[in-house]
Amino acid sequence: MKKNIIFGFHSIFSCIKNKFFLINKIYINYNRNDIRIKKILNLLSKKKNLIKKVDKNYLFKISKTNAHQGIVALIYKKNTFLKIENYINNIKKNSLFLILDRITDPHNLGACLRTANCFGVKAVIIAKNKSVKLNSTVTKVSSGASLNIPFFKVSNLINIINLLKKKGVWIIGMDCNNLNKNLYNMNFTGSWALILGSENKGIRQLIKKNCDFLIKIPMFSNIKSLNVSVALGICLYEIKKQQFFLKYKK
Amino acid sequence: MKKNIIFGFHSIFSCIKNKFFLINKIYINYNRNDIRIKKILNLLSKKKNLIKKVDKNYLFKISKTNAHQGIVALIYKKNTFLKIENYINNIKKNSLFLILDRITDPHNLGACLRTANCFGVKAVIIAKNKSVKLNSTVTKVSSGASLNIPFFKVSNLINIINLLKKKGVWIIGMDCNNLNKNLYNMNFTGSWALILGSENKGIRQLIKKNCDFLIKIPMFSNIKSLNVSVALGICLYEIKKQQFFLKYKK
Repeated sequence: MKKNIIFGFHSIFSCIKNKFFLINKIYINYNRNDIRIKKILNLLSKKKNLIKKVDKNYLFKISKTNAHQGIVALIYKKNTFLKIENYINNIKKNSLFLILDRITDPHNLGACLRTANCFGVKAVIIAKNKSVKLNSTVTKVSSGASLNIPFFKVSNLINIINLLKKKGVWIIGMDCNNLNKNLYNMNFTGSWALILGSENKGIRQLIKKNCDFLIKIPMFSNIKSLNVSVALGICLYEIKKQQFFLKYKK
Repeated sequence: MKKNIIFGFHSIFSCIKNKFFLINKIYINYNRNDIRIKKILNLLSKKKNLIKKVDKNYLFKISKTNAHQGIVALIYKKNTFLKIENYINNIKKNSLFLILDRITDPHNLGACLRTANCFGVKAVIIAKNKSVKLNSTVTKVSSGASLNIPFFKVSNLINIINLLKKKGVWIIGMDCNNLNKNLYNMNFTGSWALILGSENKGIRQLIKKNCDFLIKIPMFSNIKSLNVSVALGICLYEIKKQQFFLKYKK
């Protein structure tokens, strides 16, 4: 099993509550009097052997950052959902997936994971090469969402897209240069996989060709490119709104 | 006139193209061979006296950052729109305003300005005290949007809210703890001012009381709080969608 270091209140809260990770050790700054640390200690009252009180220099040493908020944890991933193929085979109706192509900035990845988690995305898939690693900065920026959401690194995105298509999932790519179709005109029923590319270069051509739809978000300014996590939030909002209303009507 | 330092391609592009600022001097790294710097030099071909070639140490010295991308400018604000009262008096129908309460993080402010600019927000208003300053980091994060969008710091937000109400602008506050009304149920016609608060504390009570509506964005996870710029993007998208469709129908 691979061990990970995470830090910050939200990250560690998420980890305690979720089913994909096990906490091996929690390091807490004994000088810090914070209500959020106390809340975490209460949650772990039956697992006191996991907690170790240290000073802030030690926390800096193990987390390699000053953004730890007085709390750092060593965690292990459980051996669930190891294979994306098995995961996709168990798709329920109205599921959402997120595919990220060439996202290289850990802040953008963290922000996307946070947004995806808020809207109940079932899994996030990224290409193994040319993408950022799921490190502790990503976890912190995502407010711990990166621990809540199944995250798969794959060597070939096209294979996964074809697998999703076979299971009846519609593939939609965000393309701000696309002139034909925009988010206003879309009709979202069923399951969807949303593909977003890097801010500068967008989605790769070959992946674009494999999309069922390419859409843009209508803009009202000479600045045409939203931050990738904002664009993601808007798309997921629109899909969920339509799915929710349809569910409500039935 | 107050002088400002800005840096980065997008910031300086925006500044050249917009009507609120005058460029006093542009400092460029003479060692850097970048197509985007050449594009800026072409735009300024008739104003060569503004350009000064320097080394990267000098750029670091004046911008106090390494994120300058080889280009830094000294700019002045023109004396237009000095009074928010005059600006509000000239409101056209279907206008959008953004009011930010207690946003203290420059990255969040920059991200909000970028998003607001994409959706054609007419002006951004923040309280003078307890808010972050409009500095060069904000301009960089906003991709130069902070130079495109009229930005007002006021000592009393309630006065401005009342002024907007008198001009027929609806006031809507984002409140993720609000259980009654959500964004799905809203009907957006006319002009709107959207109020967002800090991520931890939200909008102040007194300001909440002055809102016509308090709404939340429906969430589908145990992580309930979107990043403030993502929440803003979703609201502005929904308002513009409804305004656009209504305009289209007429």
